Amino acid sequence: MPIKSNHIPRATLERMAVYLEVLNSLSRDGVTLISSEELGTFCNTNGAQVRKDLAYFGEFGVRGLGYYVDELSTEIASSLGITRDWRAVVVGVSNMARSLLLQREMRMSSYRVVGVFDIDMTKVGENLAGFTVQQLENIADLAPSLRPEIGIITSRPDHVQYIVNRLLDVGVRGFLNFTPTRVPMPEGVFMEYVDYLHHLYALSFNLSTAVHLPGRHNG
Amino acid sequence: MPIKSNHIPRATLERMAVYLEVLNSLSRDGVTLISSEELGTFCNTNGAQVRKDLAYFGEFGVRGLGYYVDELSTEIASSLGITRDWRAVVVGVSNMARSLLLQREMRMSSYRVVGVFDIDMTKVGENLAGFTVQQLENIADLAPSLRPEIGIITSRPDHVQYIVNRLLDVGVRGFLNFTPTRVPMPEGVFMEYVDYLHHLYALSFNLSTAVHLPGRHNG
Repeated sequence: MPIKSNHIPRATLERMAVYLEVLNSLSRDGVTLISSEELGTFCNTNGAQVRKDLAYFGEFGVRGLGYYVDELSTEIASSLGITRDWRAVVVGVSNMARSLLLQREMRMSSYRVVGVFDIDMTKVGENLAGFTVQQLENIADLAPSLRPEIGIITSRPDHVQYIVNRLLDVGVRGFLNFTPTRVPMPEGVFMEYVDYLHHLYALSFNLSTAVHLPGRHNG
Repeated sequence: MPIKSNHIPRATLERMAVYLEVLNSLSRDGVTLISSEELGTFCNTNGAQVRKDLAYFGEFGVRGLGYYVDELSTEIASSLGITRDWRAVVVGVSNMARSLLLQREMRMSSYRVVGVFDIDMTKVGENLAGFTVQQLENIADLAPSLRPEIGIITSRPDHVQYIVNRLLDVGVRGFLNFTPTRVPMPEGVFMEYVDYLHHLYALSFNLSTAVHLPGRHNG
């Protein structure tokens, strides 16, 4: 999908992921055509929002008819960059790392874990969900064969900056950070934070506001 | 903080959480006053965005001077509803549940876990991070003393709807869902999804786009 704009709002990107999941689920159910209104309803949004989001990426669908489910799914997957595999390393032996490595959704995704690392020598050699934990210090030697593109950080919060530096050295340009530690990123390098506390804040905000503003809609 | 608008953009809410963390960190470092520009820089955004976000919640700061760090931190905490404790139950024994229950950030937060539950009888009675796992079927009997407000779902994806139904029955109105299962919510009930795959999509989108659009800034 040719990207029409390079200023895609964050919320649009998140909805695109939801559209993709819903379209794939519809495809499995044998649905071939869907209107923007229907797709919106399935995704807890509306048709106008669906059309606005998709317009950032190009022109899709047949006027008055809707979208072909498989076609739109492929276009979205292409625009999210997941029609190819991405090579990821997980750094930091933890319950979070174990959970991630064992999850079916992760194993079925385009993100392929090619190695598991830790700073702590006592963790090195340990088996974590089928991976032998390797020493982060050695990643420069292993990188030419592993070719990691994404670093998934599941370490202690105080190790993040050190880990990021080691991974930047071997060419990693994308990070998924499961710790709350914020680190500055060089230009052209991206870090995503998986922060459940922020989601809890959103919940308590909504629950508090719902009490004060009766009739406010969930959205 | 009196909420001036009941249509707070999602991105604003997420940035408010970042502002709060940065303000608390500045306060620990002894900083008492900060400009919107400085706060923006610390939070990977800019002064105009900071002022725009805060304007949804009220009028803060002293023109030409900036914000009092502790005052603004308290105002944001109040608007996010975290100047009080929230009672949460965790449902689903898993590595994710263990990780969450053991995390320092969770233990220090306003979200207090008051019980851990599972559907699976073989898990009931097990000790998970200091909690004795209880049977979800019994939650109606336990709810009057536990008074759960938030349900944290760390179960198998196919158990989510059943769990949500049980928790709705005992008055839970906010859910944090660590599974990818989407379930429709009644009006006035809120569900937040912690979906690391969506963050990976954002990464591969940014990494793909960064290649095609040289000079695009990380944002």
